[in-house]
Amino acid sequence: MKRTFTCGELDESLINKTVVLNGWVNKWRDHGGLIFIDLRDRYGLTQIVFNPQTNPRAYETAKHLRNEDVIAVEGIVVGRPPEAINPKMRTGKIEVHVQKLEILNKAKTTPFEINDQIEVSEDIRLKYRYLDLRRPRLQQNLIVRSEVYKIVRNFFYDEKFVEIETPFLMKSTPEGARDFLVPSRNFPGRFYALPQSPQTYKQLLMIAGYDRYFQIVKCFRDEDLRRDRQPEFTQIDVEMSFVDENDVMDVSARLIKILFKKILNVDVPLPIRKLSFKQAFETYGNDKPDLRFGFPIVTLNSVFESSEFKVFRNVIENGGRVAAIAIHPADGFSRKKIDRLTEDARQFGAKGLAYLIYNNNEFKGSVAKFLSQNELENLKQEMDLQNNSLVLIVADQYETTYSVLGQLRLKIADELNLLDDQKFEFAWIVDFPLLEWSEEQNRYVARHHPFTSPRTDQLELLDTAPDKALARAYDLVLNGNEIAGGSIRIHQRALQEKMFEVLKIGKEEAEAKFGFLLQALEYGAPPHGGIAFGLDRLVMLLTGAGSIRDVIAFPKTSSALSLMDGAPSEVSEEQLAELHIKVR
Amino acid sequence: MKRTFTCGELDESLINKTVVLNGWVNKWRDHGGLIFIDLRDRYGLTQIVFNPQTNPRAYETAKHLRNEDVIAVEGIVVGRPPEAINPKMRTGKIEVHVQKLEILNKAKTTPFEINDQIEVSEDIRLKYRYLDLRRPRLQQNLIVRSEVYKIVRNFFYDEKFVEIETPFLMKSTPEGARDFLVPSRNFPGRFYALPQSPQTYKQLLMIAGYDRYFQIVKCFRDEDLRRDRQPEFTQIDVEMSFVDENDVMDVSARLIKILFKKILNVDVPLPIRKLSFKQAFETYGNDKPDLRFGFPIVTLNSVFESSEFKVFRNVIENGGRVAAIAIHPADGFSRKKIDRLTEDARQFGAKGLAYLIYNNNEFKGSVAKFLSQNELENLKQEMDLQNNSLVLIVADQYETTYSVLGQLRLKIADELNLLDDQKFEFAWIVDFPLLEWSEEQNRYVARHHPFTSPRTDQLELLDTAPDKALARAYDLVLNGNEIAGGSIRIHQRALQEKMFEVLKIGKEEAEAKFGFLLQALEYGAPPHGGIAFGLDRLVMLLTGAGSIRDVIAFPKTSSALSLMDGAPSEVSEEQLAELHIKVR
Repeated sequence: MKRTFTCGELDESLINKTVVLNGWVNKWRDHGGLIFIDLRDRYGLTQIVFNPQTNPRAYETAKHLRNEDVIAVEGIVVGRPPEAINPKMRTGKIEVHVQKLEILNKAKTTPFEINDQIEVSEDIRLKYRYLDLRRPRLQQNLIVRSEVYKIVRNFFYDEKFVEIETPFLMKSTPEGARDFLVPSRNFPGRFYALPQSPQTYKQLLMIAGYDRYFQIVKCFRDEDLRRDRQPEFTQIDVEMSFVDENDVMDVSARLIKILFKKILNVDVPLPIRKLSFKQAFETYGNDKPDLRFGFPIVTLNSVFESSEFKVFRNVIENGGRVAAIAIHPADGFSRKKIDRLTEDARQFGAKGLAYLIYNNNEFKGSVAKFLSQNELENLKQEMDLQNNSLVLIVADQYETTYSVLGQLRLKIADELNLLDDQKFEFAWIVDFPLLEWSEEQNRYVARHHPFTSPRTDQLELLDTAPDKALARAYDLVLNGNEIAGGSIRIHQRALQEKMFEVLKIGKEEAEAKFGFLLQALEYGAPPHGGIAFGLDRLVMLLTGAGSIRDVIAFPKTSSALSLMDGAPSEVSEEQLAELHIKVR
Repeated sequence: MKRTFTCGELDESLINKTVVLNGWVNKWRDHGGLIFIDLRDRYGLTQIVFNPQTNPRAYETAKHLRNEDVIAVEGIVVGRPPEAINPKMRTGKIEVHVQKLEILNKAKTTPFEINDQIEVSEDIRLKYRYLDLRRPRLQQNLIVRSEVYKIVRNFFYDEKFVEIETPFLMKSTPEGARDFLVPSRNFPGRFYALPQSPQTYKQLLMIAGYDRYFQIVKCFRDEDLRRDRQPEFTQIDVEMSFVDENDVMDVSARLIKILFKKILNVDVPLPIRKLSFKQAFETYGNDKPDLRFGFPIVTLNSVFESSEFKVFRNVIENGGRVAAIAIHPADGFSRKKIDRLTEDARQFGAKGLAYLIYNNNEFKGSVAKFLSQNELENLKQEMDLQNNSLVLIVADQYETTYSVLGQLRLKIADELNLLDDQKFEFAWIVDFPLLEWSEEQNRYVARHHPFTSPRTDQLELLDTAPDKALARAYDLVLNGNEIAGGSIRIHQRALQEKMFEVLKIGKEEAEAKFGFLLQALEYGAPPHGGIAFGLDRLVMLLTGAGSIRDVIAFPKTSSALSLMDGAPSEVSEEQLAELHIKVR
């Protein structure tokens, strides 16, 4: 009884035809002496009907069918009476009158019902992932994900990119995140590492002359997993030769445009706006701004630099910032609510939160009485205040001021339901600092990675003021998420060595870890750069899923555990002995 | 000086246009006071010309250019004089008269020349893989490989398969090959394993209702590497629900047809022939027969079962086999050559090799005088002997007889240059034994894997004569290579448990290793089956490469070493401590 059709394709054109369907019992009901079953497969549902007159044995068997049993039926396609037509189902105008039934496999009662309304802990869902994956929503997520692979790959094929696989067993060169290690059996005491990204390989492919490379590839980071991180994640990895920042951004933007058009029928206007890192931070308080709503941060140092109000003036005199966001309309921001926001601001790291309410040409609020009329007028101008606005002011050190206002901005937008998930606001963040100071390591570390090129007009800064040097890096952000990041790379040995020096990676260490790359740079390396997209997060945004775990077939928990099969698990002493290791 | 064209696209339509090219100096020559350079990129070569009259400084700089330097040039496209036209080059009718030159990167002298005629050890090539990959042949191989990805994926997308990624950090369940292990940081003493194949995951995806799954995926086996094996290899992985053997073979054959048509313009006639395992072994001496040439093995037991010639009769009486291959024409098979073949037969495991030469209705050769006229006549008939044939006979135990003749057959075909690499002869091998006896483990092991279904009409054999049970498995072979293998899987818990029992995998062990799968089989598992193609080998055959290392961007040596970066390498004590392991 091999199916002749799937459960999603029968329609009126097939009335009176004999068909075979295979699928799962999705719903069973007994009505008017007949048994009705919705039979399910990936393609849809078909109503099948058992009549004791037609085949008494099949009817008897059907009586005992239960949800999730797997069956095969042969029957005739019949048009439904008008009152039974279900316009919501693709197959809603027909039903199949069963003549033969075969049970392909019985199912035990599932630990949760297979539908999207379940209220069951994620742990149970992950343990029975194969059942969870039957739910329409997860199935749809994975089908969209498959569609994304297809669109992405065909885009790059059309653009003459070569798809190349890079190794998973590579050299451990921890710089940034922790490596997953793989002990070698042939070389006692030596280890492979799983790639955190194919960074060095894709650069070598450019040096090898492949010109345009892409790959959709798993990467690995052994980090403590925050919400929505996975130890293994998928990257759309891209590298191009003879390009500058704009070339890479242009290809990436065109990919995004096609993806959002094909998957969501959303038009992404090109070009995508660019914000400098500084601009983003001083306007939105972070480097991945959510641009679906307003409330930009406005710096008010010029307004308050000679204020009588000491709190503000002192901050400014000590090199800090006074800045504010304006919420309009201010309705609903009770005293109590503002107190809660003040509490939030403290949680985010500020010493406090000042506020003003501007209404009918009047300022009220916690600091109104300390500020001069002139200052208030200037503030109004600077912030382009509308009537009935709430102004939240933070005066603190540079980072704190913007970061706290940025977090308040997001929190308020969330509370006001402004995070519209039908809206997609993209931006490129550019002009990142090349380095950041690591207190822990007491040295500069690369903000992006050590292969990112500094701006070539600023090379002298590497000696004089490394923290001022800007990188040729770019991130693509969408609705507060970083969805891609890349850079133009260093393509000359001398500059790469200089970079290692700035990072305090000694000659010997650089040689041991990256000697092959340094050497490769000497044999005719072209100028090159690239980008990598976080595919999991991108699919999450495209499907509106609440978590990346909902767009990954078999995800792990935040402690990197697979609840389904119990990995990681103990292994035999024999296996460890062969690998020349033992457990401490 | 960003390129306006690549080095492979300029033609007469662009004469008089100013263009910018970027690329590598591929060839440099000084001729008639001008400097000619072939500039190379992935897309082709363009001849560029430096004239001291046009730009004396550029000309001076060009004097010192060397092979593999990376440069940018701006110049005018000029038609070549008729005598200088190179019809072999796509850009052979034009050249570019350079007006501006910029050196993008200098290159040291490469350790070997960048061309396909190099005679340099593979070790050196692997150490400088990024230079090796510049050679036209390797570049072509990887571009074909990229094309293969594209064709394969679009085929499966069109056939409504869902592409799903499965985890790389999974549970260690060694059954067959050795696992690569990954120590867990969060769970001291516990380990992940890298997948030997996504077998259990793809079955779970069928149980989850995805109906048709595919993925091009890396797999890992920590084995001693024979020639042409890699510790990480790529598989086209496929699984389908509600199917039987023919459905999987049909989809696979149509994929192969499209691949060979699109890549090589070769028509693969469908359906692909099927041979049972027994037929293949008794006719070609192995389960991956090379069908590009004849010389089938013919069993002669019926001819010799009552022979006076004791050597043959004894073998038959002891349950062995007498069998032969006929080589036609026999020219060139001197006594000396036949002696060498006899030596080979011994190397392959036979006790000896008998031969006959049939010419002008007469038999000569080592055993001619021991055989009756009647036997010789019957042999002639059985083997359908043509005049001027050499008959090589082996009489030995079953396995030995066919295996030795199979190896001789291949050796002779190779010597006679019958292994035509423009010929592609496919076959399905079916009806494999389910089990094979492992002397080492003193138990039956699964010939394919423990999830392969036995033939459902032979289930009682599992109790009575497990070694006689056949599997619902199928291999696709091409020119002596296995390029794909698959099976219909067990989809019921009871049968899967029975199978573990036959394999002497105790209940407890089965539960610990595969409990999640056994459980999943109880919740409505559909009948399902699949196949996996070895992509590396397939691309090797499609490109005519001599080794799978020539179709992998960054391969490892046979001891699983990466000569380029030195992986595996030592790691820090700190890394090991975090992973709770130490080196023995």
